[in-house]
Amino acid sequence: MGKKFKTRYQIPFYESDANHNVKLPHILSVALQIASDQSVSLGLGDERIFKDYNLVWVVSEHEVIIDRLPRFNEIVEIETEPISYNRYFCYREFRIYDQNGEKLVDIFSTFVLMDYDTRRVHDVPEDLVAPYESEKIRKILRGPKYKALEKATDTLYHVRYFDLDINGHVNNSRYLEWMYDVLDFNFLKAYTPKKINLKYVKEVQYGSDIESRLEQDGLITKHEITSNGYVNAQAITQWEKI
Amino acid sequence: MGKKFKTRYQIPFYESDANHNVKLPHILSVALQIASDQSVSLGLGDERIFKDYNLVWVVSEHEVIIDRLPRFNEIVEIETEPISYNRYFCYREFRIYDQNGEKLVDIFSTFVLMDYDTRRVHDVPEDLVAPYESEKIRKILRGPKYKALEKATDTLYHVRYFDLDINGHVNNSRYLEWMYDVLDFNFLKAYTPKKINLKYVKEVQYGSDIESRLEQDGLITKHEITSNGYVNAQAITQWEKI
Repeated sequence: MGKKFKTRYQIPFYESDANHNVKLPHILSVALQIASDQSVSLGLGDERIFKDYNLVWVVSEHEVIIDRLPRFNEIVEIETEPISYNRYFCYREFRIYDQNGEKLVDIFSTFVLMDYDTRRVHDVPEDLVAPYESEKIRKILRGPKYKALEKATDTLYHVRYFDLDINGHVNNSRYLEWMYDVLDFNFLKAYTPKKINLKYVKEVQYGSDIESRLEQDGLITKHEITSNGYVNAQAITQWEKI
Repeated sequence: MGKKFKTRYQIPFYESDANHNVKLPHILSVALQIASDQSVSLGLGDERIFKDYNLVWVVSEHEVIIDRLPRFNEIVEIETEPISYNRYFCYREFRIYDQNGEKLVDIFSTFVLMDYDTRRVHDVPEDLVAPYESEKIRKILRGPKYKALEKATDTLYHVRYFDLDINGHVNNSRYLEWMYDVLDFNFLKAYTPKKINLKYVKEVQYGSDIESRLEQDGLITKHEITSNGYVNAQAITQWEKI
């Protein structure tokens, strides 16, 4: 439907985990980088839309479906396609393929445009999205309902200097790192994620401590990142025995 | 002197810091990846030397001289050259150039080969290093003396799941992250590292807490990472006002 953009990527040593798989937060970082690269290739890089529209792209939600995680040293093809948009939301898919063309991972992501000064969501300007050739729809596509966690265990984390990105905000990938880290090491060695829904609610500020909250019910884990009494991010993950 | 190997690299968004510079630990990770890529290109990848010799490469020391840190989105050339070796140590240089051919960063690194079973340093086998065409020397090249820190401030860190690499050890880049993180945010915004000496003494085990110890004397910072009463890594950094 929309214009596709594809990149070849080799999983580096320093982004591979103890199971020899890519670290999942890294895959989300690489995906966002590729979306940004596509925008640059269309003359719509972040600097341009900031200068011309005073807007910045913000990801609000991901749904990740994993058949198999790319492995250490593996060369994969990562394809992205802007699928559709409505008044406020732009929907984009990422697909990761192995060297035989088998699909390994599917990521469905929701983006909004935020006004830099007001920090509020802005209508999607037609001329800004036209070059992506994605479909205009009326429907708002929603992720799952994330219920507040009521019997969660809480683990405290301090926001670190290198958690911040060039905007001085906590980088998107850190939320998932905090969520993963509270799981038991033996669980992470024996189980692999099959489906993850992740919602970004509110940016974490530097200098804050955060709580990574966990409720585990068999092969379903539910997560919240909270700070100063607010929910910053929520996730639901389905796991499978390796 | 030795065989050179070169790669083009673009600094990604998610590895850029609040000053819009590359995160320094990331540069060390990328450098080690390129050294590994050169070994693979010579038929001497990690799997081969593990299978044929029961050995693994371990970096023991870095000296990093920084003229300017590569910036967000900048495309750089990273060159590596195995310079020389003696009975136990192999010395390798990394040079990072901008698009005009100006050198930005110089890294001088010391590697040893460790026997996988005994975890002890092994003599460098002549046939294993011959393809790199580096010079055999008698001299042992030493970094600075790292004196024990006597009036340091200590900050506690917990080793996280994603700190581990595929060997289940704490990834090299994490030590420098812990060292950076204890510095004041305003200091990190206003000063940039010019020279770093970093020595890896003893691996940190998963499940440990570590202390990041700091002594600051004007534009010189001295660092130790310790756990369970042992020193794991030491560093001395010289800073300059941005």
